[in-house]
Amino acid sequence: MSKLTDVPKRILIGRALRSDRLGETLLPKRIALPVFASDPLSSVAYAPGEVLLVLSIAGVSAYHFSPWIAVAVVVLMFTVVASYRQNVHAYPSGGGDYEVATTNLGAKAGLTVASALLVDYVLTVAVSIASGIENLGSAIPFVVQHKVLCAIAVIVLLTLMNLRGVKESGKLFAIPTYVFVGGVFIMIAWGAFRGLALGDTMHAPTADYHIKAEHQGLAGFALVFLLLRAFSSGCAALTGVEAISNGVPAFRKPKSKNAATTLAMMGLLAVTMFCGIIALAMTTKVHMAENPATDLIHNGVPLGSGYVQNPVISQVAEAVFGKGSFLFVVLAAATALVLFLAANTAYNGFPLLGSILAQDRYLPRQLHTRGDRLAFSNGIVLLAGAAAMLTIIYGADSTRLIQLYIVGVFVSFTLSQTGMVRHWNRHLAVEKDQAKRRHMIRSRAINAFGAFFTGLVLVVVLVTKFTHGAWVALLGMCIFYATMTAIRKHYDGVAEELAAPEDPADDDMTRPSRVHSVVLISKIHRPTLRALAYAKLMRSDGLEALTVNVDAAETRALREEWERRGIDVPLKVLDSPYREVTRPVIEYVKSLRAQSPRDAVSVIIPEYVVGHWYEHLLHNQSALRLKGRLLFTPGVMVTSVPYQLASSEAAKLRARKRQEWNAPGAVRRGPTADRAKEPSPAKD
Amino acid sequence: MSKLTDVPKRILIGRALRSDRLGETLLPKRIALPVFASDPLSSVAYAPGEVLLVLSIAGVSAYHFSPWIAVAVVVLMFTVVASYRQNVHAYPSGGGDYEVATTNLGAKAGLTVASALLVDYVLTVAVSIASGIENLGSAIPFVVQHKVLCAIAVIVLLTLMNLRGVKESGKLFAIPTYVFVGGVFIMIAWGAFRGLALGDTMHAPTADYHIKAEHQGLAGFALVFLLLRAFSSGCAALTGVEAISNGVPAFRKPKSKNAATTLAMMGLLAVTMFCGIIALAMTTKVHMAENPATDLIHNGVPLGSGYVQNPVISQVAEAVFGKGSFLFVVLAAATALVLFLAANTAYNGFPLLGSILAQDRYLPRQLHTRGDRLAFSNGIVLLAGAAAMLTIIYGADSTRLIQLYIVGVFVSFTLSQTGMVRHWNRHLAVEKDQAKRRHMIRSRAINAFGAFFTGLVLVVVLVTKFTHGAWVALLGMCIFYATMTAIRKHYDGVAEELAAPEDPADDDMTRPSRVHSVVLISKIHRPTLRALAYAKLMRSDGLEALTVNVDAAETRALREEWERRGIDVPLKVLDSPYREVTRPVIEYVKSLRAQSPRDAVSVIIPEYVVGHWYEHLLHNQSALRLKGRLLFTPGVMVTSVPYQLASSEAAKLRARKRQEWNAPGAVRRGPTADRAKEPSPAKD
Repeated sequence: MSKLTDVPKRILIGRALRSDRLGETLLPKRIALPVFASDPLSSVAYAPGEVLLVLSIAGVSAYHFSPWIAVAVVVLMFTVVASYRQNVHAYPSGGGDYEVATTNLGAKAGLTVASALLVDYVLTVAVSIASGIENLGSAIPFVVQHKVLCAIAVIVLLTLMNLRGVKESGKLFAIPTYVFVGGVFIMIAWGAFRGLALGDTMHAPTADYHIKAEHQGLAGFALVFLLLRAFSSGCAALTGVEAISNGVPAFRKPKSKNAATTLAMMGLLAVTMFCGIIALAMTTKVHMAENPATDLIHNGVPLGSGYVQNPVISQVAEAVFGKGSFLFVVLAAATALVLFLAANTAYNGFPLLGSILAQDRYLPRQLHTRGDRLAFSNGIVLLAGAAAMLTIIYGADSTRLIQLYIVGVFVSFTLSQTGMVRHWNRHLAVEKDQAKRRHMIRSRAINAFGAFFTGLVLVVVLVTKFTHGAWVALLGMCIFYATMTAIRKHYDGVAEELAAPEDPADDDMTRPSRVHSVVLISKIHRPTLRALAYAKLMRSDGLEALTVNVDAAETRALREEWERRGIDVPLKVLDSPYREVTRPVIEYVKSLRAQSPRDAVSVIIPEYVVGHWYEHLLHNQSALRLKGRLLFTPGVMVTSVPYQLASSEAAKLRARKRQEWNAPGAVRRGPTADRAKEPSPAKD
Repeated sequence: MSKLTDVPKRILIGRALRSDRLGETLLPKRIALPVFASDPLSSVAYAPGEVLLVLSIAGVSAYHFSPWIAVAVVVLMFTVVASYRQNVHAYPSGGGDYEVATTNLGAKAGLTVASALLVDYVLTVAVSIASGIENLGSAIPFVVQHKVLCAIAVIVLLTLMNLRGVKESGKLFAIPTYVFVGGVFIMIAWGAFRGLALGDTMHAPTADYHIKAEHQGLAGFALVFLLLRAFSSGCAALTGVEAISNGVPAFRKPKSKNAATTLAMMGLLAVTMFCGIIALAMTTKVHMAENPATDLIHNGVPLGSGYVQNPVISQVAEAVFGKGSFLFVVLAAATALVLFLAANTAYNGFPLLGSILAQDRYLPRQLHTRGDRLAFSNGIVLLAGAAAMLTIIYGADSTRLIQLYIVGVFVSFTLSQTGMVRHWNRHLAVEKDQAKRRHMIRSRAINAFGAFFTGLVLVVVLVTKFTHGAWVALLGMCIFYATMTAIRKHYDGVAEELAAPEDPADDDMTRPSRVHSVVLISKIHRPTLRALAYAKLMRSDGLEALTVNVDAAETRALREEWERRGIDVPLKVLDSPYREVTRPVIEYVKSLRAQSPRDAVSVIIPEYVVGHWYEHLLHNQSALRLKGRLLFTPGVMVTSVPYQLASSEAAKLRARKRQEWNAPGAVRRGPTADRAKEPSPAKD
């Protein structure tokens, strides 16, 4: 096992990574599966329940449609998995849907996909945590009684963990995910054994309840619409499938093949669990309703607002294992944990996508810097804030949050698959080899079917869920899209303004011919003596010391000491009737420039540097302000001559530590990351 | 009136103030009175009620002690006013109690006074706003039903006003203060007329209630203790008296005489109003209790928790003018407004005292800069936060908040008066003129009596109120004291570390003999071309351009363009296996220093400046990070060559506007402010 513990650690500490040693640090399939699949696998904890909830609107009799809906979800899952296996082979660089859409359909399609995915990440956090809390609540009632509070607490916890730069290790994902998958399979097997071999009758805790149908005897178009809505809800099981296509570089070689195999395994596990839970729910007679307080009837009386409707998976576990039994509690805990890991996935994915978008200048460039703590922090806080807002607005109710979900996923699926069709068309136009052509035509057929099917589902989702909340997700997408377009426009404008003219004669700038240096002095101490010594070295065309007379007595003392020490630089005193420093200096610099417009002015500021943030509060504020103002004055260069105080050592240590900080999402991004580079100064 | 409107405006816009034109911009007495006295005058709105509340513990029979307590408060008020008239003459510079205590009793006494005053400012905000809300609530029930919410809203409003830099004008203070004073005098006069001339029996709304004494038939020591506690509460009327002694420089000439006269006027108004309200409360039979819900009995039944006890002043106004009458409503509104102005006084006084403390290096130097928006903002936010916390903890209940109040004021009174005694002793030791000596001996007697009396009151306040909340105020004082001592210690340590050695041979710094310049390049654009042109002007001993190879293709393109353009500076390329920029540059600079330790390195960074805060988010982050790191590297000078983008104009405009911002407290500080000067860069 020592290998296993080492591997993620070395992946995560970027410093240890050199291109020649990359091979050892990649993920084997058995670790890649839980790392990438915690999101899609965890969704079987809520998707089956959502199907039953919607069907219950037409009364319990509509429950017999649920196997058909399960079949539709399974077909869709296989379609999506088959389609993405093509993506993984065609785009092994890990750019995912955004790259596929941008390359094949253009920048606007790519940006649409990106907006959809960003919204989707927010919803992954909100939905997964809400559902995790509900599952945990089936074992610990306190949690579900303080749902919103607990959900916010989990969001805060994940946020803090990610802000601190927790090391994402494969093991962390592997154990709960395998416990969860194992638990669900044992439940299905044990349930099947008890039902079929022993002939036990298992009863869900809600088996004796009746459902008051909100629309009894629905038929025709209305019934079809309801079934489509139930199907839409079931599609929540598909979310996160695309994660593997973003993570190809993290796989061991052969990367694409291993990623494709993992994708298939994940699809198989997900549909088995989904169908198993639906089947057990039918067998144990789980009854769920959209409004359990009024629509669930027990002994002729509605259950009232005090009733808490537990998730399907926990009701089934209760029926199969028995309430409060060891396995029941383990499964509930594993379910909650996997759901929280799924939420954590978004904490990794959001800044990762952000960094790719930043490279394409749709987001601030510093987001792109791997390991820029501040930049990642902004992304994490944005994600957490949006998810917390949704959690509060929707009362941490997973059923209501799911209405917003999956719009983004299916926008992304559809555009990505459409892009793949274009991709194959482009390649088919030049490919001559018949065997390869046959392969491509097959791939194109799969992607075309994928595009058609996911597009159809997208329409269904939009039509059936628009008023239930999908509009919120669309609004979010539009906001992201507009913001990113505006940022790109800004960067393009700046680049144009900065572009160096080909012909130097076109340069509007007057080339300065001489430089006049000015050293700012407030007092004679070590920093000013050092600044004067350095300024003399520079041999500029003129050198003088400058002080602002804000206090006559102090200025007199300064002048006397200047003479006593015999400093051989002329000291110029500026009057300041309003006791300011910044303005007289700026005006003096401007007057120098006005006297000889072809000269540049070099302003040299002695500064001393301290090590603690609270010391910063105590020092250098006016120097900082002055530097800030000077930067806006044309024809000036601003030089800081730092003097390091003893306490500055602390800051050096801190900076070193910060450099070793691990950006969230490192494991799933993989180490090669061809696209990644840190921007140079003044480039961004 | 046009003169009047102009005057405050000109006082406030510092730019228009030149030393030769100061005379016109000073406050006449009729404006100075409301500016400085809104705090002490407004306290008559709650002080009389607090006396009755405490007495009610011993039952309604104890109310007949209230005139005696009023007499004690009047004597105390005259003592304090007489004492401070001496301060005003002896210390016309406006340093107030802090200056008096520091000069005569030493730094520790001064710091104690400062801590006490800072706590007092916080409590002035909390108490005045709570009381203002209660007065407003007597006319508008909604307000008192949402007491905490409304109080917080007022705090937020005042905070925003002061953060924006509202112009404090004399007029703003004059109108509500005179309406309030006028209203109270009319009430007293009309009440006396109705009672004495017309023989009307006026009934307060609580006249028919009975008080259930918590301790019936109190006698001996217990009774004395209760009377002392009632007296302590009445002393709330004294708060803010010292304000004038801080504001002497703002008065017209003869400054000290005018200030002393204003002080006397204020004292006279305050005691007349205080006694008048107590007398009317007795006449109209106001009944108040500490716990009105249980201790006020109407027809044998306790009033219960729904009962809202209105302030004495509003009950008296109801009895004299009639409930809901025009004058009643006007008086309630004016009372609330004056109390909010009193709170605003603290918003001015807190940063003002902070700026004086900053000059003595007990607080961050930048607090001292007049008009430094950021620094004042920190002070304002700190004050508002502390006041809001107290308001929430004590439920905006003025009675409970008053238990914390006045400890600070009397600490400050006692130390200041003791300091004055020392002051006269010192002067008497050298003064020969008999007339002057007589005058000094008289002043010393007044101050000695003041010190004794206020010291006695301080002991009484501490003994009677310690467990009721005075300990919170003491704790606050200790926190301020400890923080300021630590800051001073830090500044002293830094000053010692920075002090220039008298003998240059003692200098531990190796004087550099040569300088090597390095221009950082990421791309060829206008800013880099400008930086190269400037760097060449500097004629350093060596010049090279430096780029970091984070992307091989980009570096190749850069090198080609470099050659194509024939730039005559050698281009050095640093490899960066980890795709970083900061570390390779730092390490290269260090290696240069290691090769020739007697050389300095000048790092020149092309930067472009943008104008909006959101543009800052999009640019220059890695340049900033690099600059920050370079400052911690010894032997380096860091030069920014700014390139102003078109949008930077916006920032220039904003900076200009910010410079014209008015720091709160300008009116009361006065324009001369001998102590005031803006610190120069690198001094603080």
